[in-house]
Amino acid sequence: MSLSAIQKNVEAASAKYSSSFTKGHLALPPAKKYLVLTCMDARIDPAQAFGIELGDAHVIRNAGASAHVALRSIVISEQLLGTQEIVLVKHTGCGMLTFDNEDAYGLVEKNLGPDAAAELKARGLDFLPFAELEQAVKDDVKYLGDTKLVPDNVTVSGWIYEVETGKTRRVL
Amino acid sequence: MSLSAIQKNVEAASAKYSSSFTKGHLALPPAKKYLVLTCMDARIDPAQAFGIELGDAHVIRNAGASAHVALRSIVISEQLLGTQEIVLVKHTGCGMLTFDNEDAYGLVEKNLGPDAAAELKARGLDFLPFAELEQAVKDDVKYLGDTKLVPDNVTVSGWIYEVETGKTRRVL
Repeated sequence: MSLSAIQKNVEAASAKYSSSFTKGHLALPPAKKYLVLTCMDARIDPAQAFGIELGDAHVIRNAGASAHVALRSIVISEQLLGTQEIVLVKHTGCGMLTFDNEDAYGLVEKNLGPDAAAELKARGLDFLPFAELEQAVKDDVKYLGDTKLVPDNVTVSGWIYEVETGKTRRVL
Repeated sequence: MSLSAIQKNVEAASAKYSSSFTKGHLALPPAKKYLVLTCMDARIDPAQAFGIELGDAHVIRNAGASAHVALRSIVISEQLLGTQEIVLVKHTGCGMLTFDNEDAYGLVEKNLGPDAAAELKARGLDFLPFAELEQAVKDDVKYLGDTKLVPDNVTVSGWIYEVETGKTRRVL
């Protein structure tokens, strides 16, 4: 297989990382029984920014740190792997603040054509953009509080990471 | 607000990380126009293991590195933020190899009660477990190749990360 520059970079990183790897003994369940839910944004390094040691926490990432999209993973984390606390982190400058579903559907039709637009519609994909950051954090914490799939003894907190400063501050 | 030990850890990590933070200028779109899709597993540090520099790539994580669950984020990454390549990484010892939907539905009913079981059923959540790791990588790469929402000019590769050795090897 010929490799792209990005694929070569994965191979080089793997050779370097594995050459000094000493954590092969870690167990499957997160040692500190928590999960971090944050955005896929390229400017976030959860391990460094939020202080996650290897093996300590599940890390779930999707566009906008959507609790709704993450619910499947959260239930698995809780019910099968013992998670008792959720740290939800959205961030300043999030792409989800910059468009709405109509824009995204329009872009798919324009860039990928009518068959792709039809598939998107058939799947009923909601991109779940949001208009105000702090409110979006509150809404998602409430969503996790309301669903019966996250029991009351699971602690949920909501935070904002500032891509400009590297700081993470608690919202609620 | 009183803080849990985990919340205190986030605050301490944030103070340390932001005190030497120099990347506040990074742009929203990933500089290297790619995304990494991997599992939420606590034993994976994508930045280190796969060589992702801050600002270079979107990182999507969910239980099992499911391409189906990630599709919404992938479309946003491609259509709004210029992603041209997908690196999909599943891993040895994945929790998704250890149960099926029936087990998970049973655990929810046993642990959280009939109301939670009813909510799970109403949402129709599929946990998307898989029986064989390498086949699951192939299936998800095929899924991304088949959907019209990932155009043919987006390169997709499939990999396995070994939690025992820290190595990442290409499957296809």
